[in-house]
Amino acid sequence: MLDLLGPLVVSNSTKIVLLSLDGLAGLPHPRTRKSEMETARLPNLDALATEAACGLLRHVAPGITPGSGPGHLGLFGYDPLRYPVGRGVLEALGIEFDLRAGDVAARGNFCTVDGAGLITDRRAGRISTDLCIRLVERLRDIRLPGVDVLVESVKEHRFVLVLRGTGLGGRLSETDPQSLGAAPLPVRALEPSAERTAELVNGFVAESRRRLADASPANMVLLRGFDQLPTLPRFPEIFGMRAGAIAAYPMYRGLAKVVGMEVLKTGTGFSDEVATLRQYWDGYDFFFVHYKDTDKAGEDGDFDAKVSALERFDAFIPEIRALGPDVIVVSGDHASPSILASHGWQPVPVLLWSRYCGADPVTAFAERACAAGTLGVIPAQHLMPLVMANAQRLTKYGA
Amino acid sequence: MLDLLGPLVVSNSTKIVLLSLDGLAGLPHPRTRKSEMETARLPNLDALATEAACGLLRHVAPGITPGSGPGHLGLFGYDPLRYPVGRGVLEALGIEFDLRAGDVAARGNFCTVDGAGLITDRRAGRISTDLCIRLVERLRDIRLPGVDVLVESVKEHRFVLVLRGTGLGGRLSETDPQSLGAAPLPVRALEPSAERTAELVNGFVAESRRRLADASPANMVLLRGFDQLPTLPRFPEIFGMRAGAIAAYPMYRGLAKVVGMEVLKTGTGFSDEVATLRQYWDGYDFFFVHYKDTDKAGEDGDFDAKVSALERFDAFIPEIRALGPDVIVVSGDHASPSILASHGWQPVPVLLWSRYCGADPVTAFAERACAAGTLGVIPAQHLMPLVMANAQRLTKYGA
Repeated sequence: MLDLLGPLVVSNSTKIVLLSLDGLAGLPHPRTRKSEMETARLPNLDALATEAACGLLRHVAPGITPGSGPGHLGLFGYDPLRYPVGRGVLEALGIEFDLRAGDVAARGNFCTVDGAGLITDRRAGRISTDLCIRLVERLRDIRLPGVDVLVESVKEHRFVLVLRGTGLGGRLSETDPQSLGAAPLPVRALEPSAERTAELVNGFVAESRRRLADASPANMVLLRGFDQLPTLPRFPEIFGMRAGAIAAYPMYRGLAKVVGMEVLKTGTGFSDEVATLRQYWDGYDFFFVHYKDTDKAGEDGDFDAKVSALERFDAFIPEIRALGPDVIVVSGDHASPSILASHGWQPVPVLLWSRYCGADPVTAFAERACAAGTLGVIPAQHLMPLVMANAQRLTKYGA
Repeated sequence: MLDLLGPLVVSNSTKIVLLSLDGLAGLPHPRTRKSEMETARLPNLDALATEAACGLLRHVAPGITPGSGPGHLGLFGYDPLRYPVGRGVLEALGIEFDLRAGDVAARGNFCTVDGAGLITDRRAGRISTDLCIRLVERLRDIRLPGVDVLVESVKEHRFVLVLRGTGLGGRLSETDPQSLGAAPLPVRALEPSAERTAELVNGFVAESRRRLADASPANMVLLRGFDQLPTLPRFPEIFGMRAGAIAAYPMYRGLAKVVGMEVLKTGTGFSDEVATLRQYWDGYDFFFVHYKDTDKAGEDGDFDAKVSALERFDAFIPEIRALGPDVIVVSGDHASPSILASHGWQPVPVLLWSRYCGADPVTAFAERACAAGTLGVIPAQHLMPLVMANAQRLTKYGA
């Protein structure tokens, strides 16, 4: 798709706003039989849906629940199956670690092992973030031959390990046996080019064990999700647009950076994000604006909180429309139904508004309503070509 | 798809009519919020849609605006991404030039260059067709080693160049720098097998310049869209049908010829085409009938003219049904919304009528109505297998 698109891209002065409501789609409440989106009062989104073309996005494949990485790559126009993003990379992006091409990143857990070295708690009793920070200090000056060792604390028992140097490989097995009573596994290279890296990581684990020997319950580490930054075609080059990303949460800024968008400095709330959008309006063609509250409420299993999060978002729509965008897209990276209290595999409502979007019968922005829209149920990576067409930034294919 | 189909084709005496309304799909009028199809009074098409299975066709990919070539190849059952048709080939087909396998065709423009050879007008002030014909005479007897040089005037500043000979290659860069103040570019081979052709073309350009030196404003040529006829599997062989094409406009006759249909002699209006259909009814199994007026009005940005064109077409439906076809398909090659005044990327309504098409809830032939049809939104090249099935010309797959 991206190969097809490239030669068809033409420049234009149109402006596009992609509003990503994290974990947007939900499921009906068992009592009311209405989903969070169907329950919320969303006058501005409904009005937009009435003028827009609507549908549902499927981010990976039927029945597959997307993580935040694949979910957003799909929204950005990339096939998430072609460009996997490892857990270690995502964890590093989530703390705004300056991950560079060639770095190998892994997600780390502090865990508890007994005298025989067998795991008794895979999360070391979820130690406090403060303790995590102090323990990470002990690991930071571990030296390995020919590479830099970078360790950063995350939350509770979690940390990020990054090896930086030349000739590293990210195709490595995990040390976490995912069960109690077993010893951590040695890392194995999953392809020959990663063999030296496997040795280095095993050296890091052995040294970590020595340094943590007296730190029970957090007396050992588990590493998983080894990966390197994917080499993605750059969004601004593919689509010929200056692209700005606005997200209060670091992981989403990181994902935008991975595809080459410029991350715009913003505050901690969505009103800050909208202010940032206004501030940078003239400087960019395409804006990715991320809204986190819907996912948070969904993952907490809090139906009412998700309804409120949707209503709060709705109230910002007039302010965004007042900026005069040529194309507005509202969708999300995956479902987070409150009754699942986690990400879900359900396709995600999308509305695409422009002067040329065509009308469809949809008058409400919700799961069932959008299923009857003219966009149909489409792979998420088909959205960007439609957005580009609506922004009159594509010429025709063939004569 | 075609590979799958081939072995399943069986013969039958059923008759199929494919009615292609060029640029059929539109967009709502900003004032009435109704599209051209929704505005037009189409009693016969609506009645047919009520009995038919309906849906929307997407000819290339989401967001991609098809040219007439890819649009029709999709209707004929070919994946337009697998079988690209170059601008030069289409231009030659458009003047009914007898293009043969191996020929290299290019679209030519007369242009104006200054004393330093820099382009001052890429279209030489859109010279008259009469002058174009006279200038083409000057180029016609250019001789190049080992190939025939064929030059034909088109309209205004446009002409077609065809090189005929053995061992030619069509993968060539264009000479048009697409900007003023630059010199025409030399042609480069884009693959080794086209190197000799590149030299020949550069020879043609150099000689043209000499011959046009005193012909200001049309004192130079620009060439683009080099291509050879694609080698397509032949429609009558794939589908096991005698296929007749009826089109008043030469380009569509040319496209039908490229896939191996027989072009039936007709007049200049759609009533002539319907008369031709009646005349040849017994001699063919499959008829492709092309209607141009919808596209013309759409490309002119004339909403009312497109509405009228649709209504004029509708009036012919009873006459066509009276012939007793077993399968009737009505669709188009791409959208041409009046508010865009050009081809559009929007999917195109399709109705498929037969005794076995199944019922769906659609009772009007229009964009929104067809979006709710049982065919769904499908790639255009999936239409022909459905048509064949409805004509009982396919046996089952597997035992």
